[in-house]
Amino acid sequence: MRTMCDTVMLNHQKDAIKIIDQALLPNRFEQIELRDIESVYHAIKTLQVRGAPAIGVTAGYAMYLAALNSHASSVEQLLSDLDDAREYLVTARPTAVNLKWAVCRMYDAAVHSNADTVAELVGKMLDESIKIAEEDIESCVVIGENMLRLLKPGMGILTHCNAGALATVRYGTATAAMYLGHERGYGFKIYVDETRPLLQGARLTAYELCMAGMDVTLQCDNMAASLMAYGKVDAVITGADTIAKNGDAANKIGTLGLAVLAKHYNIPLYICAPSSTLDINCACGDKIEIEQRDATEVTDMWYIKPMAPKEVEIRNPAFDVTPAELITAIITERGVYRYPYNFK
Amino acid sequence: MRTMCDTVMLNHQKDAIKIIDQALLPNRFEQIELRDIESVYHAIKTLQVRGAPAIGVTAGYAMYLAALNSHASSVEQLLSDLDDAREYLVTARPTAVNLKWAVCRMYDAAVHSNADTVAELVGKMLDESIKIAEEDIESCVVIGENMLRLLKPGMGILTHCNAGALATVRYGTATAAMYLGHERGYGFKIYVDETRPLLQGARLTAYELCMAGMDVTLQCDNMAASLMAYGKVDAVITGADTIAKNGDAANKIGTLGLAVLAKHYNIPLYICAPSSTLDINCACGDKIEIEQRDATEVTDMWYIKPMAPKEVEIRNPAFDVTPAELITAIITERGVYRYPYNFK
Repeated sequence: MRTMCDTVMLNHQKDAIKIIDQALLPNRFEQIELRDIESVYHAIKTLQVRGAPAIGVTAGYAMYLAALNSHASSVEQLLSDLDDAREYLVTARPTAVNLKWAVCRMYDAAVHSNADTVAELVGKMLDESIKIAEEDIESCVVIGENMLRLLKPGMGILTHCNAGALATVRYGTATAAMYLGHERGYGFKIYVDETRPLLQGARLTAYELCMAGMDVTLQCDNMAASLMAYGKVDAVITGADTIAKNGDAANKIGTLGLAVLAKHYNIPLYICAPSSTLDINCACGDKIEIEQRDATEVTDMWYIKPMAPKEVEIRNPAFDVTPAELITAIITERGVYRYPYNFK
Repeated sequence: MRTMCDTVMLNHQKDAIKIIDQALLPNRFEQIELRDIESVYHAIKTLQVRGAPAIGVTAGYAMYLAALNSHASSVEQLLSDLDDAREYLVTARPTAVNLKWAVCRMYDAAVHSNADTVAELVGKMLDESIKIAEEDIESCVVIGENMLRLLKPGMGILTHCNAGALATVRYGTATAAMYLGHERGYGFKIYVDETRPLLQGARLTAYELCMAGMDVTLQCDNMAASLMAYGKVDAVITGADTIAKNGDAANKIGTLGLAVLAKHYNIPLYICAPSSTLDINCACGDKIEIEQRDATEVTDMWYIKPMAPKEVEIRNPAFDVTPAELITAIITERGVYRYPYNFK
């Protein structure tokens, strides 16, 4: 039933990465091919590809392209080229943990490949990059299966921001159970918060779930309470950016509000995320630093003309922290965890 | 300390209504003069003047202009002209209760004026229209004084939408205590929700409070929970569109969510409104019909290009209903009411 292709993949000739250009969504669907690390760098920088797992997979493929395009005549020379590629790629988005993780994994695989020839090492890079992509898909499927067991056909599900297929290779994290349920005829009624200020819910989540043929309704963030009061929401499902050892979870600004509302209306709130999101060195949510983003995202971005007086101070935190006790369950590819959380 | 002039007033020659053109805010401050009922009709229709009380006052003045501009040579003829003016003006915004109320009050005053001459009747119309404006100011001041007694200097106050001076002649309802407190050096820290989809908080409330020199911070609606979690909010103050006999209050979409959050964080939520907002024929909030507005307000309005996929269904309720038990107090010009409410 899925009508949308993978967010990131290799083309048939395996000489280019094919990505959905997310900067054009939701107004135009276009896939572009990236044939060298410079175009990958540009695609990451300009958010043509975004979402931690999708960036990681793209960066993994980019390291393979670096090997493929290298003019190295020896394994040592190729390793040196890959080291350069790694250092270059991480600067595309310095705060993206998965970007760094993926290029380092690729480089380590190269170093430990025991390849005798350049061609052999290029082949190992191809294998490792495909493995990263396959692991991402597998992880999303398992998260989806774990989450789906907690849901029933016909449920109304509210989600926030985009922890969707467009942030991964396929299925997404918060959306994985929606895709799997949709494939099995569960007939979910999906509600999507537009997610100000960057509108990821409107532009990306509503788009990808509509493309998959689901029953999707978009609303402004401040309409969630009214939707719950009407009894339309049976579950809230979001992703997470960081989960602390005690289960406190940082996610897109607005998630905390949904958690409080869900508690008031006795609706379960689930957080779906790969176990790589767990940071056991972070004891609790207080330790998570919250990025304050540019004021113009609130006042000017997207708009024909500015929508706030120039004099006003703007508050624009990118994330909020939902305390563990407001989270009904945290679902990873390893299983379903319930409060009190004590991740190891 | 107030630097902004009244939202609606008569000019010095008393031959025109002077209004702040709110359609240009927050990008341009401009006052325009309306010299006949046709330009008043246009100003109401195009939201150059908006907010129930401000519309009522403008319509009252418009009835005076209709009398002033009339070529009637007898009191009977003038009454007939005023009847025509009344019928014409109410069609500018058929759902605006205050518009109808004001033109009918003016017409009734004319009918019962016992004026002997046209000039005398025109004078009575001037007096009555000024009375409507003065009553509006007085009502806001008393609401403000009643509210201010519940606040302390230095408090952080969160408001939503615009129940401000721009919706009345001066001071506003939800904002009245902020203006009065500001005049007395209370040093409030004011937080304003932008209020999607029409952005009245960003465009109007943030604007007028900044112009008055207050300490104002604007945020997206979904940031309220995080603000409360940081302990920055000591009180939430909003207006209301309709208050039922039992105290359930319909107000701009998002108010219900704030009320639930406020309860969770033990923050009082106050509703400030003139007693004309009470509808004792409405037993409870379930009976209040919620207007569903156009989808393009969410997807297209303000934006350079559409921000949601064309296929998606849009939910756009204009209001939500806050149950009485979540409202700490309802403040009108008659006093401070607390739960359980039983308005008469």
